Amino acid sequence: MHAYRTHTCAALTAANVGETIRLSGWVHRRRDHGGVIFIDLRDHYGITQILCDPDSPVFSEVEKLRSEWCIRIDGEVKARDPELVNTKLPTGEIEVFIRDMEVLGAADELPLMVFGDQEYPEETRLKYRYLDLRREAMQNNMKLRSDVVASMRRRMWDSGFREYQTPIITASSPEGARDFLVPSRLHPGKFYALPQAPQQFKQLIMVSGYDKYFQIAPCFRDEDPRADRSPTDFYQLDLEMSFVEQQDVFDTIQPVIAGIFEEFGGGKKVDQTWEQISYRDAALWYGSDKPDLRNPIKMQVVSDHFRGSGFAIFAKLLEQDGTEIRAIPAPTGGSRKFCDRMNAFAQKEGLPGMGYIFWRDKTADAVAQELGITVKEAQAKLKSGEVEGGMEAAGPLAKNIGPERTEAIRQQLGLGNGDAAFFLGGKPKAFEGVAGRARNVIGDELGLTDQNRFAFAWIVDFPIYEKDEETGKIDFEHNPFSMPQGGMAALDGDPLQVLGYQYDLACNGYELVSGAIRNHKPEIMFKAFEIAGYGRDEVEKRFGGMVNAFQYGAPPHGGCAAGIDRIVMLLAEEQNIREVIMFPMNQRAEDLMMGAPSEPLNEQIRELRLRVLPPEA
Amino acid sequence: MHAYRTHTCAALTAANVGETIRLSGWVHRRRDHGGVIFIDLRDHYGITQILCDPDSPVFSEVEKLRSEWCIRIDGEVKARDPELVNTKLPTGEIEVFIRDMEVLGAADELPLMVFGDQEYPEETRLKYRYLDLRREAMQNNMKLRSDVVASMRRRMWDSGFREYQTPIITASSPEGARDFLVPSRLHPGKFYALPQAPQQFKQLIMVSGYDKYFQIAPCFRDEDPRADRSPTDFYQLDLEMSFVEQQDVFDTIQPVIAGIFEEFGGGKKVDQTWEQISYRDAALWYGSDKPDLRNPIKMQVVSDHFRGSGFAIFAKLLEQDGTEIRAIPAPTGGSRKFCDRMNAFAQKEGLPGMGYIFWRDKTADAVAQELGITVKEAQAKLKSGEVEGGMEAAGPLAKNIGPERTEAIRQQLGLGNGDAAFFLGGKPKAFEGVAGRARNVIGDELGLTDQNRFAFAWIVDFPIYEKDEETGKIDFEHNPFSMPQGGMAALDGDPLQVLGYQYDLACNGYELVSGAIRNHKPEIMFKAFEIAGYGRDEVEKRFGGMVNAFQYGAPPHGGCAAGIDRIVMLLAEEQNIREVIMFPMNQRAEDLMMGAPSEPLNEQIRELRLRVLPPEA
Repeated sequence: MHAYRTHTCAALTAANVGETIRLSGWVHRRRDHGGVIFIDLRDHYGITQILCDPDSPVFSEVEKLRSEWCIRIDGEVKARDPELVNTKLPTGEIEVFIRDMEVLGAADELPLMVFGDQEYPEETRLKYRYLDLRREAMQNNMKLRSDVVASMRRRMWDSGFREYQTPIITASSPEGARDFLVPSRLHPGKFYALPQAPQQFKQLIMVSGYDKYFQIAPCFRDEDPRADRSPTDFYQLDLEMSFVEQQDVFDTIQPVIAGIFEEFGGGKKVDQTWEQISYRDAALWYGSDKPDLRNPIKMQVVSDHFRGSGFAIFAKLLEQDGTEIRAIPAPTGGSRKFCDRMNAFAQKEGLPGMGYIFWRDKTADAVAQELGITVKEAQAKLKSGEVEGGMEAAGPLAKNIGPERTEAIRQQLGLGNGDAAFFLGGKPKAFEGVAGRARNVIGDELGLTDQNRFAFAWIVDFPIYEKDEETGKIDFEHNPFSMPQGGMAALDGDPLQVLGYQYDLACNGYELVSGAIRNHKPEIMFKAFEIAGYGRDEVEKRFGGMVNAFQYGAPPHGGCAAGIDRIVMLLAEEQNIREVIMFPMNQRAEDLMMGAPSEPLNEQIRELRLRVLPPEA
Repeated sequence: MHAYRTHTCAALTAANVGETIRLSGWVHRRRDHGGVIFIDLRDHYGITQILCDPDSPVFSEVEKLRSEWCIRIDGEVKARDPELVNTKLPTGEIEVFIRDMEVLGAADELPLMVFGDQEYPEETRLKYRYLDLRREAMQNNMKLRSDVVASMRRRMWDSGFREYQTPIITASSPEGARDFLVPSRLHPGKFYALPQAPQQFKQLIMVSGYDKYFQIAPCFRDEDPRADRSPTDFYQLDLEMSFVEQQDVFDTIQPVIAGIFEEFGGGKKVDQTWEQISYRDAALWYGSDKPDLRNPIKMQVVSDHFRGSGFAIFAKLLEQDGTEIRAIPAPTGGSRKFCDRMNAFAQKEGLPGMGYIFWRDKTADAVAQELGITVKEAQAKLKSGEVEGGMEAAGPLAKNIGPERTEAIRQQLGLGNGDAAFFLGGKPKAFEGVAGRARNVIGDELGLTDQNRFAFAWIVDFPIYEKDEETGKIDFEHNPFSMPQGGMAALDGDPLQVLGYQYDLACNGYELVSGAIRNHKPEIMFKAFEIAGYGRDEVEKRFGGMVNAFQYGAPPHGGCAAGIDRIVMLLAEEQNIREVIMFPMNQRAEDLMMGAPSEPLNEQIRELRLRVLPPEA
């Protein structure tokens, strides 16, 4: 007999009745019933009910067992009485009468219970992660993560990609975030850096002629922590292809991502056709470059209806250059209560408020005013049907701009009785963010957002450059490695009009994938950097490895990277990235279980020829 | 038509004749034959011959092409004349008549040719790695590596393992080598460390109840560079299992490793039965804990034959405690020339020499001496057959110890005419290394080592402790996490006699795998550390994360790690680890292509609150 087990705790069924078996696992739950001890024995695979009656030779030892002790038991499999069969458990037909037992690992008093749903502060969970990880929800999340990554690999192999590992201890590769540095012992005073992404290396792999690369790649960014971001390392499915255009990359990654969501999405609907939305349209329609398309609301420009209208705030605003009024239609939102709640939301977001109109059944008030009768009379006429009720537009905005403009707006937005619309005005950049968040809240509160769906769209045509509003300086909007649409010629015009072959994949309000067709022509690259104020020397210094390589026959290439932690979060329906990472740092970038970071030994610091400076006074 | 290609450069066959196609790739080789230009166009998949005659509309552009320019061509597929078919090339039946061309990426003058077998200094190859990686041998090595890793993953999944990722930015985990440190910006003065191996984390995963873990894990050791070691990061197939004994680990990993060698070993014989050899026997028989078992030579103790013999050096040596004489049998090595060469080898290794005996046909000299006749007479008698020649033992040692002892040695070693034996004496630890190397050289020089085989054996029963010869201090021989055989009781006796459940896999002279059944009982762990001079506090400080976890119901567990770079080296028949790593550091731990390590920006250093000290005077 094996030293520890003949079966796992998920294996025994009625077919094993009568057998003498051996199991190992943890005491999940222990109950005493009239002198008989019941133990739910748990391992990674499942739970088996163990029964110890006073006749058992190990009764006195079993009596001492407590939660989470790790034990090995020998026993006899017996069928449960029919009325005691637990159909929810694979082992629910049987129970094991214990005959021998060995304590493999005793447990101290637990700071965190594995059995049950009690919640604990995150610090406790992270400090005792090995207990937290035993809980069913965490076991499921970690298995899911592992299975998702495995499936990604299988799908990439099946698509003709090979995985190549790129260096982790390497050169600084400035990509917007802060590098983690690693001091060199052999070259004191010099530092390596951990890669923010394998961007340069994957492009070098293309220049090296490998055609199709992917990697489940660890990435390192020294960023301030956030709920959906790990403060140290995170993983991405990184891929790159040679001799491709944008659509080729889409055609490659879509089946991989869609396949993963179909495989692990718990039966939720997965979009099969992925719309391509320009960055500009996404901002206009959804107020976001990662819109949640489960929400059917699409914003519209309604400036014309307010120009010269009686609503002075908007009318005046529109006299300024670059301003617009946009409407957020809110089907079924047509109640003052809801509109007021949204107005309060806007105030919480720092706006003075959010104008609205809503459409409802005509009130007696309105009829009385219209016909010059009393409200009571109006009520009676409405009730008897003598006066047809119909629809009225309500809200202060409607009054200010009058019925014609109001009706024109209603028609443009395709709204009807019981619906509402919210209005924001100004320079779009200034209010798009709030508008996007308002759209989300409206969609959620009105139940318009389909919770049972993964909605995907490619956001394309990102501008290459942006202008710093304060300094007026032109800089890269996103990533300096993208090929400008129109190539060299495009760079001769207004930089702010230049779009890149650069794209993101949005899913349910998250950015899941980001990528580009790369700028593989050294002369276009130098020119693109020049526009952003980086001289040739600077480019060679910062990206020398890659730029030099481009001098030796670089193929056109492009690719993308998908955030694995985020994909698993979505699939696991978790809001916090730490729920899908086995051993995450806490929000202060500490690992309290392992004690990281920690003070180095003097000897270590001396070998690196470093000195730690005292805190600034 | 696709912007870059309708086919890869390996795809066109006679079936495509007459088609207009598009290819992209690199100019591998260009030849001009009587006004016609031939280009071997290469991509990742293969080579296609392109032909440009003076009638082609792009002749003048094609004339300008040079090696390694990346181009796109359109052309017409034509059948080659039967006598020009190249059966070695998948595309050898056809050639493409070029009709249009686009330069996708021009190339400067090349510092390194991709076509051909010219050798370049390693510094050149690493600096222009993107050109070096285009060469066929490197393409094959990288594909092999990728395929080996993919196959490992498939095999591990099929064995019921899941891959879980462990942190890369984490706590120092002292395991014998030096850590790479990462200064923390959020906690100035504190440092993270990169893991030397995921040892503690994988054990924590077992305590967390995950049963079977594996990872293709990057490991980081700040070690001085060596040919078969990367100076920064390397990869291992890391695995751990709960509720197992040593044999369970062997039964799990053997099919994975054997399967990989069968799949990628180019048809070489792969041992199916893996012997288990104790550490002590391996040292005795092979002078190594990673013996090359393709070499049939097995050393033996022959002390008794020299005790009190006429060979005073050995006889005297044996009067000292702990000394031994060992023989290296060398079948077919029976010539003075070979024996002298081996003696010279020993001198080069720093020994005064290596005694030997060899057996040969009796010489006339020997017969003359024996029978008291002249050498000439002896020659005649031998020639006529009047005296039977037979075998004689030659070499100074044979003379010193006399024929009886010599014959006893020959019989013990099972040698015969034409064979030799070499002898080393002293304290085994002092000469085992040289003996092992001599065994290798003998096996190679005499052609005894089967080059067509992967020979595997488990080396087991490693001692837990060793004694520092100088200080007399007891320390861990290997890895402090192994379970001592005999558990707590064993630790009460002589520490130097305690063996561990610890094992290595040797293959063709390399250590491919190393592992252990772990010490999961806190009290045995503390005791084991105490013997090596580490107090409870020290253990808790160094391995706190893991030791604390063991207080909460730790399962028995064990595992191993296989060196991926080394496995691929063996399969690729390479001697240098850098041949199987895409972007390796050079021997001074520098990446000359990317410029790592480099001077940090002042701002970076300031943020980390560090100062670099000037070089010591």
